[in-house]
Parts: sequence; C-alpha cells; structure tokens
Amino acid sequence: MNKIKASGKWALVSMATALLVACGGSEEPESTAKVEQKVETIEWKMVTTWPKNAPGMGTGAQVLADNIKEMSNGRLDIKVYAAGELVPALEVFDAVSRGTAQMGHGTAYYWKGKVSAAQFFSTVPFGLNAQEFNAWIAEGGGLALWEEIYAPFNLIPMVAGNAGVQMGGWFNKEINSLADFQGLKIRMPGLGGEVLEKVGASSINLPVSEVFTALQTGTIDATEWVGPYNDLAFGLYKAAKYYYYPGWHEPGSAVEAIFNKDAFDALPKDLKAIVRSAVQQANLAMLNEFTARNNAALQTLVNEHNVMLKPFPQDLLIALKQASYEVLEEIAANDPQSRKVYDSLKSFLGSVSEWHDVSERAFINARALE
Amino acid sequence: MNKIKASGKWALVSMATALLVACGGSEEPESTAKVEQKVETIEWKMVTTWPKNAPGMGTGAQVLADNIKEMSNGRLDIKVYAAGELVPALEVFDAVSRGTAQMGHGTAYYWKGKVSAAQFFSTVPFGLNAQEFNAWIAEGGGLALWEEIYAPFNLIPMVAGNAGVQMGGWFNKEINSLADFQGLKIRMPGLGGEVLEKVGASSINLPVSEVFTALQTGTIDATEWVGPYNDLAFGLYKAAKYYYYPGWHEPGSAVEAIFNKDAFDALPKDLKAIVRSAVQQANLAMLNEFTARNNAALQTLVNEHNVMLKPFPQDLLIALKQASYEVLEEIAANDPQSRKVYDSLKSFLGSVSEWHDVSERAFINARALE
Repeated sequence: MNKIKASGKWALVSMATALLVACGGSEEPESTAKVEQKVETIEWKMVTTWPKNAPGMGTGAQVLADNIKEMSNGRLDIKVYAAGELVPALEVFDAVSRGTAQMGHGTAYYWKGKVSAAQFFSTVPFGLNAQEFNAWIAEGGGLALWEEIYAPFNLIPMVAGNAGVQMGGWFNKEINSLADFQGLKIRMPGLGGEVLEKVGASSINLPVSEVFTALQTGTIDATEWVGPYNDLAFGLYKAAKYYYYPGWHEPGSAVEAIFNKDAFDALPKDLKAIVRSAVQQANLAMLNEFTARNNAALQTLVNEHNVMLKPFPQDLLIALKQASYEVLEEIAANDPQSRKVYDSLKSFLGSVSEWHDVSERAFINARALE
Repeated sequence: MNKIKASGKWALVSMATALLVACGGSEEPESTAKVEQKVETIEWKMVTTWPKNAPGMGTGAQVLADNIKEMSNGRLDIKVYAAGELVPALEVFDAVSRGTAQMGHGTAYYWKGKVSAAQFFSTVPFGLNAQEFNAWIAEGGGLALWEEIYAPFNLIPMVAGNAGVQMGGWFNKEINSLADFQGLKIRMPGLGGEVLEKVGASSINLPVSEVFTALQTGTIDATEWVGPYNDLAFGLYKAAKYYYYPGWHEPGSAVEAIFNKDAFDALPKDLKAIVRSAVQQANLAMLNEFTARNNAALQTLVNEHNVMLKPFPQDLLIALKQASYEVLEEIAANDPQSRKVYDSLKSFLGSVSEWHDVSERAFINARALE
C-alpha cells in the first residue's frame, strides 16, 4: 500500500568507514569518497473531511503531515487533501479502507451508517470532555474497542485532536425555560439532533451552505456550529443574536486519524512510533489552539458584534440530560458492538465524573468565587 | 555535549544503487554488495527529581526515553537516573546547565532560588488547570517567556507532563470555616505555604521521610501531597482521616523537561523534532494516567479505608483565593522577570477563565444536575 517514490531521495553519506567493495589495481579508492545512498521515501495521501484550511481542523491536518515529514527526515511524506479534492468528505472512511489514501482525518460520527458504534468516538451529549475522553481512550479501554470496531474495515484509528466543549448554538429568540425551547426548529446533526426530538424541538438537517440563510430568514430558529473561534469566522452573529451555552451536545469533539492497516503495518518500527507520537502531539496542539483562541473570538462577538451570551435554563438542561441518556441507551440496545462501547464509556464517565467533581469541577468553581 | 558512542552502531545498507567509487580492472563490484554504514548513536543522560519508579512522574520519564529511542531507531539513547542516582533531586537544574547530563525531568518551582520566575511554570494557587496551562505555554506566549528565563542557564524548557488538579490535603480534624483553619500547622511547601501564612495558618517544611510520622503524632495538623493515585501509595490515610478538596494550591502541576542547550542544538533537525514530539506525547500521556487512575484510588480510600472526603468551606476558599493573588503580586513586585511572566499568566488566566466559565465549567456543572 505504501508508494515508494520512484525518483527516490538521495542523501550524501560520508563513506570514510570501511567499504566492503574490493577495488584492485593501483588506484586506491578515495578514503573520504562520498557515496550517494538512496533513502526510500514513502509517499502517502491523507484525505480529510475538512474544507481547505478550516481553522484548527484543516490546518491541524497539515501540521501533522509536516511534523511527520520532519521527524522522519522526509522518509514519510504525506500530501493532505481537503474535502472534495480527492474524495468527498463522507467518503474518507471508504477511501482509506480500500487504500486509495493511506490516511484519513475527520471525525468518527460521520461513519455511523457503516458502523453504529463509531459515533461514541466523536463526542456524545452530556458525555466526556476532552481531558476525560483522552483518558478513556488511552487508559480506560477506549482505544482497544475503537480498534476492534474499525478492524473489519482494514482501518486503525487514533485521536488526532479535540475542539473542547462547544457552544450551545445561535438562537433568534431568548430561551427562558424548556417550554420556550419546545417547538423550535434547530439545525443540529448527529446525536444532539436525536435528543432535541425527545424534548419537543425539531431537528433540521441542512447543507452547510444553506445554514446562514435559513437562520436569517427564520426557516430555522437556531443552529449549533462549533465554538466562538469557528462561529465568528462563519459570521453566524449576523443571522441570530442569542448565543447559548454550554454545548451540552458536544462536550469534547474529538478528531480522528485513520490509517489503512496494510499501509501502517508496512511502515518500519521507527516510522510507526513517529506517526503515533505525531498524532498525539497534534491532539494536544489542537486543544491548545481552541482553548487559547475561543476566548478572543468570544470577546469579539460580545463586544464588537453585540451578541447576547446566555446560559441555557436549568430545567431545559435537566430535560436534555435525561433525553441524552435515553438516546444513548437506545443506540446501545440496537447492536451488541454499540452496547459494549457505550458500557465502557458510561462506566468511565461515572468514575471520572466522581473524581472530577472533587478536582476539576470543585477547583474551577472555587476559582470563580468572589 | 552529545556523547557519540565509541563502539557505534552498524546498519547494513543495501548498495545496489550506483557507487561513485570507480573500480578498474576485471573485477566488477558486486551489484548487491552490502556496505556497513556507521549510524551514530548519541548517548544522553536524563537526571530526574523523582524517586525511582514514582507513579506517573518517574515512570513517565522512562517512557519518554523509550519513545525517543524507538522513534529515532536507536540513534538517541537516553539513560534515566532517579533522584540521587547521579545527582540529588535539587541539583538537576545545575547538572543539566553545565552538561553533566544532557536532559532533566522535574518541576520548575524547585529552581525558584536560582530564578524566581520559574515557579510560575509549575502551577500557582488559583491559577491555570492543565488544559489552560498547556494552552498558555503553546499559544499564549508562555513558552517564549520560559525559554527567556532559562536561557542564561544554557537550558531549554518544555512541558513534559501534568498531574491535573491535586487534592487539598489530609487533615486530622474537620474544617468548617476559615476560623477552624487558622492556627493549624500544615506541611505545604512552595507558594501554597506562603498563602497559608497570610490566612493565619502555619506552613511547616518537613523532609518527605518525616511527613507521615509528624501527621500521625500531631506534630503537624495536616499535609498536602498529590492526589489519590499517589496519596494512596504513600499511605497517608493511616495518619489522618479527613481528605479535603479541591487542591486550590496546585490546580495543574506541570512537569518539565529541560535540555542542555548545546546538546539540544547539536542534534540533527529530525532528532530535534522527535524530541519535541515525544515530550508533548509524554505531557498528554501523564495527564491521561492521572485522570484515569485518581478515581480508582479515591474509591479505595473512601470505601476501603473509610477516609472522609470533604470540600473546603466557602469562606476559607475565598480567603485563600485573595491571599493567593497577594502572594503572586508580591513575587511579581520583587523582580522584573517575575513581573513579566506573572502579567502574561494573569492575562491568559483572565481570558481563558471567561471562556471556560461558559464552556468547561458550565458543561461540567450541567452534567452534574439532577
């Protein structure tokens, strides 16, 4: 599956050390002769689900490729394709599975039609935040399950980034109770959309290109997007005035890197280790970027664009939480793989929540005391 | 500064490609001749401030060395020394500065006697949690300042781990108000200890070997340590019954890797990139480990050892928070470098707190709603 670059890469290697090539006659080989040695360059394609240079995600994919190239001294050279350049966003999984590309970069819930349990590896409503998700994957059995469900597709998954807790979305009216929320038409794909239906709102699916106009004209009452960093760039503040928090539906949206198993297995041991390390470096770097940049964008939205920043009312959050756990249980009930993955996630969530209640949560609340 | 292994490491390189060495006569060089090419192995020493195999920290240093060796295919081979094996814990900074070791692994507040501003790069009371600290370092100007203050010592710093929010400590009586806290003798080193003095408690410094007995016999009334994962191993539940939270004094204890600048600069570009990536991988891995394991240890403490888990009272937390900011301002007032670093940290804290109030904090509180 790995494509070895035909033209090769040539490195000058000093051959002052013993040459086993015997040369007869009166001409001694020059003791400091330079010998051109062919270093194999492996060329990979990385297909992504992101628009070209999408902040955080698209740029993160390119940085990941650059880091792997630098660490491998050019031996693993990965060309990054934005969504649609080589294959459309929603064909990334298949393209890597069959080896059209050796690597993909996206998020797991896109593949729920092929493998239902995949959606637990993006983020789930009222689930794990970024720190907790990373710990579940690395230390709580998450990675083994993820590998297990992708194995039939000849794919190896890794966590390649996280956007942190997202925002609750843009609304064109104030929400003061669960009742205000009921009947609203909200653009929210994925699990969050299923939860909406359970509490009496409507989940609307729209192509990205139509979201802005639909919100502006009142065809929809609200839309979720990402967080301030991306939402500011998208200009949603021009279409709706109220910006609600928290993003209960996506508390730690994980980005995945997927690898064609044959291509990955064919790498020498050092390149495998380099890829694994670079992906984890990218995971941390993306969260750093979102953590640092969301606030600046939030300030711009509030101070320059007069966005009204509002918390969801408590009765609504309680209803959404109950509905979320119902939706997750229903998915788990539908196939044994989802059951297994959700049970693992739920068990980790229960245990890490207890710890974080007395550590992260207690601290961040103490810090906010006046 | 890098020690090139004298005996070398020999790799067989296929030389089927063109040899520039001209060989005359009737004997053609064998086209598939193997040529032994010497691969330089760089040997480094990593001195650490941790006891041998200390959970999380000491084990993390070894994993970091192993990963670098694997990624570099053995070209960078780092031997890890526990505290006291090559130099004592508190001489790590000097040993790496002068090149006795090429690399160190510890935490920055140990070096405050040499460079006061270093203590801002471990953790500060009521400061940044792990996610926020990483973002400040990577995206908020923290790293440039850290590099600047270590440069006169010929050292390059990087974040190599984080233990997350710690626990508030072990107390031999219940604390129901600020008044209950005043007059207590508490073993708490560092900035936390200075804060204690400001609210009317006494900060006691004791060697680690004396902490357990001092708490058991009532020579001290309380001690902080790390979190459940480490505290359980240390057996502190046998000496005091009340386990308070949150660890206001250490909300995201960062581990640092330091490098002798000459040694690091002498690395080829690919090895530099490998080291940087491996350190970030280690940073994430350590937080994963603490996040996942603290809860299991907490359950053991509460359920098997009947530890009483208690939140600090609100009036005490408010007093500690005010005193913390006074202590930090005093340090900043004492030298221009500390002023510069603290201003950067404070500015980032203000901005990231506003964002996390509506994201991480709002979410984690919403998740806890019944």
